[in-house]
Amino acid sequence: MGVGYICCTSSSSSSSTLLTYKPKQLFNLANPTTTSITSQSHFKTSTNFYSISCTSSSFLPLKCGAGIDIRETQDENTSNPMMGIHNINPDLLQQMVYDALVWCSLHGLVVGDKSVQNSGIVPGVGMKHAPFALLPTSFPQTQWQQACDLMCIFNELIDRVSLDGNFLQDTLSRTKRVDVFTSRLLDIHSMMLEIKKKEEIRLGLHRSDYMLDDQTKDLLQIELNTISSSFPGLGCLVSELHSNLLNHYGDHVGLQSGRVPGNTALTGYADALGQAWKEYNDPRAVVMVVVQTEERNMYDQHWLSTVLKERHAVTTIRKTLAEVDSEGELLPDGTLLVGGQKVAVIYFRAGYAPSDYPSESEWEARLLMECSSAVKCPSISYHLAGTKKIQQELAKPNVLERFLENKDEIAKLRKCFAGLWSLDDPHAVRDALERPELYVLKPQREGGGNNIYGNNVRETLLKLQDGSEEQAAYILMQRIFPIASPTFLVRDGICHQDLAISELGIYGAYLRNKQKVIVNSQSGYLVRTKVSSSNEGGVAAGFAVLDSIYLT
Amino acid sequence: MGVGYICCTSSSSSSSTLLTYKPKQLFNLANPTTTSITSQSHFKTSTNFYSISCTSSSFLPLKCGAGIDIRETQDENTSNPMMGIHNINPDLLQQMVYDALVWCSLHGLVVGDKSVQNSGIVPGVGMKHAPFALLPTSFPQTQWQQACDLMCIFNELIDRVSLDGNFLQDTLSRTKRVDVFTSRLLDIHSMMLEIKKKEEIRLGLHRSDYMLDDQTKDLLQIELNTISSSFPGLGCLVSELHSNLLNHYGDHVGLQSGRVPGNTALTGYADALGQAWKEYNDPRAVVMVVVQTEERNMYDQHWLSTVLKERHAVTTIRKTLAEVDSEGELLPDGTLLVGGQKVAVIYFRAGYAPSDYPSESEWEARLLMECSSAVKCPSISYHLAGTKKIQQELAKPNVLERFLENKDEIAKLRKCFAGLWSLDDPHAVRDALERPELYVLKPQREGGGNNIYGNNVRETLLKLQDGSEEQAAYILMQRIFPIASPTFLVRDGICHQDLAISELGIYGAYLRNKQKVIVNSQSGYLVRTKVSSSNEGGVAAGFAVLDSIYLT
Repeated sequence: MGVGYICCTSSSSSSSTLLTYKPKQLFNLANPTTTSITSQSHFKTSTNFYSISCTSSSFLPLKCGAGIDIRETQDENTSNPMMGIHNINPDLLQQMVYDALVWCSLHGLVVGDKSVQNSGIVPGVGMKHAPFALLPTSFPQTQWQQACDLMCIFNELIDRVSLDGNFLQDTLSRTKRVDVFTSRLLDIHSMMLEIKKKEEIRLGLHRSDYMLDDQTKDLLQIELNTISSSFPGLGCLVSELHSNLLNHYGDHVGLQSGRVPGNTALTGYADALGQAWKEYNDPRAVVMVVVQTEERNMYDQHWLSTVLKERHAVTTIRKTLAEVDSEGELLPDGTLLVGGQKVAVIYFRAGYAPSDYPSESEWEARLLMECSSAVKCPSISYHLAGTKKIQQELAKPNVLERFLENKDEIAKLRKCFAGLWSLDDPHAVRDALERPELYVLKPQREGGGNNIYGNNVRETLLKLQDGSEEQAAYILMQRIFPIASPTFLVRDGICHQDLAISELGIYGAYLRNKQKVIVNSQSGYLVRTKVSSSNEGGVAAGFAVLDSIYLT
Repeated sequence: MGVGYICCTSSSSSSSTLLTYKPKQLFNLANPTTTSITSQSHFKTSTNFYSISCTSSSFLPLKCGAGIDIRETQDENTSNPMMGIHNINPDLLQQMVYDALVWCSLHGLVVGDKSVQNSGIVPGVGMKHAPFALLPTSFPQTQWQQACDLMCIFNELIDRVSLDGNFLQDTLSRTKRVDVFTSRLLDIHSMMLEIKKKEEIRLGLHRSDYMLDDQTKDLLQIELNTISSSFPGLGCLVSELHSNLLNHYGDHVGLQSGRVPGNTALTGYADALGQAWKEYNDPRAVVMVVVQTEERNMYDQHWLSTVLKERHAVTTIRKTLAEVDSEGELLPDGTLLVGGQKVAVIYFRAGYAPSDYPSESEWEARLLMECSSAVKCPSISYHLAGTKKIQQELAKPNVLERFLENKDEIAKLRKCFAGLWSLDDPHAVRDALERPELYVLKPQREGGGNNIYGNNVRETLLKLQDGSEEQAAYILMQRIFPIASPTFLVRDGICHQDLAISELGIYGAYLRNKQKVIVNSQSGYLVRTKVSSSNEGGVAAGFAVLDSIYLT
């Protein structure tokens, strides 16, 4: 199915609708903005089930760019938040999509288009709008507040865990034997322990991701990212986009712009980087962003550098790990020079995945940076503290108590922990073999899309039952069944209507020096929404769009 | 020569340099931002001549995204505005280009990329940065002020000429016989004269284009656009881009950000449209932008609609001429409905070229609109008042006096008129046959690139010497030889260094009702810069980039 016309798709158990622009060659209308829809949607609003009747011959011409007089229909859909979108007027929908696409283009809510050469290398070529949800995802106020409140506790927890070198080494010792990547990180960590390297200025830019369990409405943590937390820039823009759309169309869809929380992710991250730079206390030093060779999400990063420059007059340089290796130099006092420039803060937007280290050169670079006096975001300890194995260890009884004193805070953290077990927990493994649909098997290695669901959980567990070391490469996690809601997902200029599930990420910033904590804050949020796969009933790989939330 | 590497090009008599990003497959460096340059540039700064020695084996690696500590070299290049750029540090240049590309991407300085399908139809897909000059073009303060001062006089002149139906018809009567497009416009104009149609609210959004003659430094008018004056949106952004770049790098290149004049083109046009909408006095009516079927410059237009919405809460709809024909309806009181929506203001961003009227349908639409009570921008009279033939007639002795009283204003206008003659002026034609290099032969039809230069002037004149009606399809104009300056032109992510000439456009907005003039203002500016062709010594077709000015 190509860009430029309208059609119905059906997956195994659900249908979806694509709305897009009709090119003149198809319908012989010299009209760039006329659109059609082939389907009529009927949502049963009392349940999560919906059906779409496809009538592929009934092209209803929609006007795109057509103005809507908001006053005329002000009394429509004023109650039932998020219910109104089910029977949204197709003209209105098309107009909203068009306006949203324009908004993205004018306001830098863009990514590189992989079909265009150099789009991940040269800025300003091969751009397209970032994929987004047309409307924010409904989210209960209480759980939102809960997620926000947790962030500062997690920030503090990560810092304390990072200081306990033995805890990190011990907990990851079995993983080390089966996971080469974690092993290399641990090697660097060991070297730092040996030379008694102290990180006096510690900067964490984290993102803690959650889902809401459909049945219990519990807020459950999916993971805590301590390296390369992405989308502080584009995420803020999506919140702005949604506020803007609801300012214009809110009355029509029964949603109030004021219920989209303000998003401070970008300024929060920029300010933390700026303050870390200030702590380093060398006006000539720069912030170095460690980047991948090709990066189609470069604009998210450029937003951060731009705001850092605007708000703190701090200059950013961008270097790959290979460049850091070839251009990097450590002065006797620990100062890191890269290409002759003194580096105050190293901000990693690469280095979190094994593929970022194709040769020894990249590991050399990582070690060089770790040995330096530059502020690392993250340090090797912060990086390790964010691994899934550590997450699972922290969920064990009495482990949080090792790092935190406040009983109330410990209780709050524990409340958001999903069930997490290692594969040497016979009770958990037995249950997962019996009811694999209630579990997810997560490999230690980073990068989504590797999780194992359903019958594959049983098969994999059986394979690993010989007590092999390989067990340590996985953790077992409670399967979360989030609420699936009808959603308009917009990608490549096409609006696609489908059932989707959302993941809420809360950004956190933490900065301290030898004496005191300078920053410990919840800094904005990110929602990613994906089409829910009927096979899995969980998170489907791919087709994630950026989103924001609507407080209910 | 493709995107992604650096090379030397040579045209008939000049060489040029391309700076761009080196892909790793060429140089085997996993570095997205490393660049090279194959040429060393040596400008003779005392003249306009420059030479480039190409040493294609000497790749000098440049760092892109590398930070520059502005304080370190603050004392460099602080005098001689625009001279410093000749020996600009290649690292610095590369950094500026990179920053500029990022700035464009984040701030909506974008156009559709014709190599990507649907990029002229669907917003948000197939975007790339608009082509731009890296630095503003030097322009003398006196001539800048002169150009600004002229705008309100031209605005008033156009309004008065538009009211003189007989002048328009008489002056264009010979053109009518040989130019079908002008003939059709005149037919509509005649019908309006017959029915005594009065335009009580008259809105003009003009742009008067000038070049500076190299020898005399005279400011000479190229043309006055009364329809579809483009780039009020992107033009402003280029001024902002240049201010921003000079804020960061001004000390390095010896240029001060404050010397780039603030550009109010976007708000000026939006405010005039908003006020015209208010004059129409129907809160439910919309502004209709008449657009082409495909429009890769759509973002310029979207900026205008966005600011109109933000500043005046006015809704915009976009319609092609064919759509206006099929959906348009005239109520007995003259109200124009399009797709059921009442139209207060018709803003043409199409309809200026014969190709915009592929069938009778489009002419029907134009007539329908002209018959309506909507404010037309422009009306048929304003459109005709902007034709080259009228420009030439106004340049004749005693013609301006027919429309304006103020002798001082008349003198000011006349001072900027280049020599303009019709082909029935035997004296001018004789001279042009003898010295064709001093003339340009301009066809009446719109859309650049059709001008005739050099020996072709003589050949065409000889062909037309039989006194044929065809003569009336052309006007003869004094050839302007503008200053050619070394310039960095950036297109498709590539920085190209070449000699270039610039054209300054001044935007003007004019609005009046039955009683009084409501708006008569100079509203910002646009500079377009093109590589100067050594063959022509004048404007080469293509490769125009957006630019701004630097007052000297």
